[in-house]
Amino acid sequence: MLNISVIGGGRIGRIHAGNIAASAHAALAGIADFDPAVATISLDDAFKADAVVICSPTPTHADYIERAAAAGKPVFCEKPIDLDAVRVRACLAAVDKAGIPLMVGFNRRFDPSFAALQSRIAAGEIGAPELLTIISKDPSPPPAAYVAVSGGIFRDMMIHDLDMACFLMGEAPVWLSAAGSKLVTPNGADFDTASVTLKTGSGQICVITNSRRASYGYDQRIEAHGARGMLRAGNQTTTTVESATSAGFTTDPALPFFLERYAAAYRLELAAFIDCVQTGRHPSPNGADGLRALELADAATRSAQTGEAVSLS
Amino acid sequence: MLNISVIGGGRIGRIHAGNIAASAHAALAGIADFDPAVATISLDDAFKADAVVICSPTPTHADYIERAAAAGKPVFCEKPIDLDAVRVRACLAAVDKAGIPLMVGFNRRFDPSFAALQSRIAAGEIGAPELLTIISKDPSPPPAAYVAVSGGIFRDMMIHDLDMACFLMGEAPVWLSAAGSKLVTPNGADFDTASVTLKTGSGQICVITNSRRASYGYDQRIEAHGARGMLRAGNQTTTTVESATSAGFTTDPALPFFLERYAAAYRLELAAFIDCVQTGRHPSPNGADGLRALELADAATRSAQTGEAVSLS
Amino acid sequence: MLNISVIGGGRIGRIHAGNIAASAHAALAGIADFDPAVATISLDDAFKADAVVICSPTPTHADYIERAAAAGKPVFCEKPIDLDAVRVRACLAAVDKAGIPLMVGFNRRFDPSFAALQSRIAAGEIGAPELLTIISKDPSPPPAAYVAVSGGIFRDMMIHDLDMACFLMGEAPVWLSAAGSKLVTPNGADFDTASVTLKTGSGQICVITNSRRASYGYDQRIEAHGARGMLRAGNQTTTTVESATSAGFTTDPALPFFLERYAAAYRLELAAFIDCVQTGRHPSPNGADGLRALELADAATRSAQTGEAVSLS
Amino acid sequence: MLNISVIGGGRIGRIHAGNIAASAHAALAGIADFDPAVATISLDDAFKADAVVICSPTPTHADYIERAAAAGKPVFCEKPIDLDAVRVRACLAAVDKAGIPLMVGFNRRFDPSFAALQSRIAAGEIGAPELLTIISKDPSPPPAAYVAVSGGIFRDMMIHDLDMACFLMGEAPVWLSAAGSKLVTPNGADFDTASVTLKTGSGQICVITNSRRASYGYDQRIEAHGARGMLRAGNQTTTTVESATSAGFTTDPALPFFLERYAAAYRLELAAFIDCVQTGRHPSPNGADGLRALELADAATRSAQTGEAVSLS
Repeated sequence: MLNISVIGGGRIGRIHAGNIAASAHAALAGIADFDPAVATISLDDAFKADAVVICSPTPTHADYIERAAAAGKPVFCEKPIDLDAVRVRACLAAVDKAGIPLMVGFNRRFDPSFAALQSRIAAGEIGAPELLTIISKDPSPPPAAYVAVSGGIFRDMMIHDLDMACFLMGEAPVWLSAAGSKLVTPNGADFDTASVTLKTGSGQICVITNSRRASYGYDQRIEAHGARGMLRAGNQTTTTVESATSAGFTTDPALPFFLERYAAAYRLELAAFIDCVQTGRHPSPNGADGLRALELADAATRSAQTGEAVSLS
Repeated sequence: MLNISVIGGGRIGRIHAGNIAASAHAALAGIADFDPAVATISLDDAFKADAVVICSPTPTHADYIERAAAAGKPVFCEKPIDLDAVRVRACLAAVDKAGIPLMVGFNRRFDPSFAALQSRIAAGEIGAPELLTIISKDPSPPPAAYVAVSGGIFRDMMIHDLDMACFLMGEAPVWLSAAGSKLVTPNGADFDTASVTLKTGSGQICVITNSRRASYGYDQRIEAHGARGMLRAGNQTTTTVESATSAGFTTDPALPFFLERYAAAYRLELAAFIDCVQTGRHPSPNGADGLRALELADAATRSAQTGEAVSLS
Repeated sequence: MLNISVIGGGRIGRIHAGNIAASAHAALAGIADFDPAVATISLDDAFKADAVVICSPTPTHADYIERAAAAGKPVFCEKPIDLDAVRVRACLAAVDKAGIPLMVGFNRRFDPSFAALQSRIAAGEIGAPELLTIISKDPSPPPAAYVAVSGGIFRDMMIHDLDMACFLMGEAPVWLSAAGSKLVTPNGADFDTASVTLKTGSGQICVITNSRRASYGYDQRIEAHGARGMLRAGNQTTTTVESATSAGFTTDPALPFFLERYAAAYRLELAAFIDCVQTGRHPSPNGADGLRALELADAATRSAQTGEAVSLS
Repeated sequence: MLNISVIGGGRIGRIHAGNIAASAHAALAGIADFDPAVATISLDDAFKADAVVICSPTPTHADYIERAAAAGKPVFCEKPIDLDAVRVRACLAAVDKAGIPLMVGFNRRFDPSFAALQSRIAAGEIGAPELLTIISKDPSPPPAAYVAVSGGIFRDMMIHDLDMACFLMGEAPVWLSAAGSKLVTPNGADFDTASVTLKTGSGQICVITNSRRASYGYDQRIEAHGARGMLRAGNQTTTTVESATSAGFTTDPALPFFLERYAAAYRLELAAFIDCVQTGRHPSPNGADGLRALELADAATRSAQTGEAVSLS
């Protein structure tokens, strides 16, 4: 049994804590939090567990990872490691030096439908991917206070899709162009509607669109097109019930938000982390994946602000 | 070019006339009708054409078929030949004696989706059919005056489904049980909601449900289940447009009624009739198919009225 | 915390045990089983818990219910209470006399999609139900040894659908006709393909079809048609992935079998049982529901064997 | 009756000729073609009809339009007017001076599903459009000889989607970025896989992806996302038949190519042209629409070649 502590008892932290508690291979050492009403252990004690799951606010991630590295503890950290790529590189250097396993919380890789998409593409079912379309929309915009410290839509929201693009294409982008608009919150501090086009060295093209608003639920879809065909993964609904009236045939809207949509993904990513720690297998996605996604998000931010395409080294 | 006359210039008659006119292999000799404003030729002249399409009121069908037989003209006749099986048999005897080709207007056999269902079942794609489910609902009930002379829901409406069942199962039913209710028009003269279960000699089971009302359009679906899998054909919509709102995902309702739903079927059945006349191929469905469907409808009517199942010889 | 014992540590017993253990409102007192390798408590101790969940072989159900009644313990019992309606009535009399809550395991009522269907029908969304279509097919036939003691397809398999029909129509059937065939196992001891048509006092018609074989997974679908429209609940798949090739658009097959398809239903029915015990609310479905479904299954068996329809009092 | 001539008796020309012949409001004056085996009238006579439909090779379009203008004849011309925007402007000046109606063959605007999309967006059903996704893939690449004179994928293929984007957004793009790859024909003379992102003055973002190859048929889909929801139009299939096997649920592939997919659109655009000529209504799409789409295609070509985004005046 792996004794795992959770740092940060917010929404995601409680999900991971619950999955640890329910796992046959792990036990919950406790939750560390600044709020004494939430915390069950101290921060110091959190680093005495066999492994640490970091779900605290983003600005603390790199520090806690380094502290775990110093203590020689395997770490699972919610994305992003930091909003500053320089800081991420320093943190990853510390991780490398300590030789601890670090897994980064790109949970969508573990969504059963997206994972099946990846494995079927990798197995050659559609041939080499040529066009990838990722559509990702939140049901409603976050509070302005959150937006202000989020790093912007590309680093906060699209970073998941940028990682997914790399995961599915199996090749690094060499060119990127982004567009951003303020349509949901016209006077907001950040773009709320955005697109990115990526092109890889072999010529694969990936188009990602994001919106901070979707009246019909959490819209999460991917399609991959290749020489032999297309594979796509669609939205999920609460029930399969369909009604038929003079207005037409109507199914449920999409699941409300990420807690519902990615419930299985959260469970499976934690199981993968536990398995890595116990078997010595290398975690995936790892720190390099986190850094690459952040660098793409940085480039996209720059592109959307200047209106110019960006060549990636 | 086959010169074809149409007897009866109502809704269906005009559809057949249009399809004849548009055919590269036939020409419209004219439409005979009691209404001089509709008629373009006399009834006598109608029987001088190369072939006759009968779309007049049901009580005239058998007489006109016999008249065509006497004139040695190939006949396409809308279903049913007559509401009285005795009269149908006499008529078919005259057809046989004259040796004219007779095709009966079970148009649904020519619907591209249902025709594909039949050919794929016949090709063994799902193995021997075991369970057949036919759902058929009109958008709204016909006028009471029509119901009064229609022969009842089983002879007027379900007769299409009974023919379809025979067409798809490829085997005659040996047992039947029916149920009927008055739910759409509680004080109506006839059942408006009904079901029939058929069983064939080899044990195939077919369940048909009918309603005279469907708020969401003309509901026409079939599914066939066999040892190797299932094949089904669904409803069709005017467009493929789907909307997504907080109420869910909504597509168009089903096509309004038979004119829209079976437009291709009407065209294709007429083309098949023309082809039979020109090549000498035997028409299908023929008079025996029409008689068999009527006998099943008679048995279903009896079963629904008495509440007792019926063994068919 | 309600201390609940499970009698019978087979497939279903272990599911209920897991759900009890995971519940925030209950604790698992232990599992009693004839197999010492499975049992964690004795049968005597099982009846000392606060409540008893019976998942042992069918012939033991009524005895264990009566023993729980004698001990004054609330009981959840897997369907059927017994294969003999006389024995069921005696058992229910003992339950009534003891005044214990008895819930019967018609788990499908708790399936989120079917439960939504029921509540939306009950809320009047489609008006009074007029036609109900229930399609239920197992992926593959059970072993011959199981079939021999199962009571037959109507009592073993269709009993779930018969209960569902009553649940959705909200009215008792007054007439029934059934058909059965041996198509999956031609020389088997029992029908493996079957249909039942039910008619209620107000004229609602329900058609149920069953097969012991479906190559594409566990086929569980329901549709209800009423004056204002139709509501239906479809199959579920493992992922939402769809592929497109020259062969067409292909999604996953249906979920494999009941353990996957009704995982949520098992969890929710146990939560409902726990809630009933703790609040004093009357359990539903109860013993009378179990008896009614059995009586319908008996009538269906008789009808399929004789080919005659049955009037129900 | 409007007497209409067709110039160019190729695939599209014959479609228009057939639709003219079938129209209740027009008659086919004849087909002019360089191939005497195809031509039914001379080129000179073509310009004596009441109106002219130009379906000849692209390099002849502008000349024939100008000749029709000189003759004062209304013109329907297949897209593009010319591959050179300078030549198009000169041609449109001649059209303006002559005051003849000119309609350009962006047939997809008349596809019932896409037309419904446009009218429902225009009616405000989803609020102001924010994100538009257009996916358009041909089943297989054209011959190299065709590609060589086609003007490239943006002017030849994506020009339809660029016009559709303007049609649906109702606002002119002010910024564009394109990407192109050679994946279908790695050593081909032109890109065969491409994307364009458009941004309008109000911030609407449109993403278009094209491929010259789709194993599953002609892939033509559009989705529009706005404040109140999403509207999308999907692919069409030959039949509604779905099979279910252990491999899953499979429907037909998409319709083979544009002749099948846009059969109704061809018919409806010609009806609109006839109506414009007969009523004096201004044709839409017109020459300015053709020019705008060509200018966008030019900009996209430049962007894909240089890797730089383009600001549009």
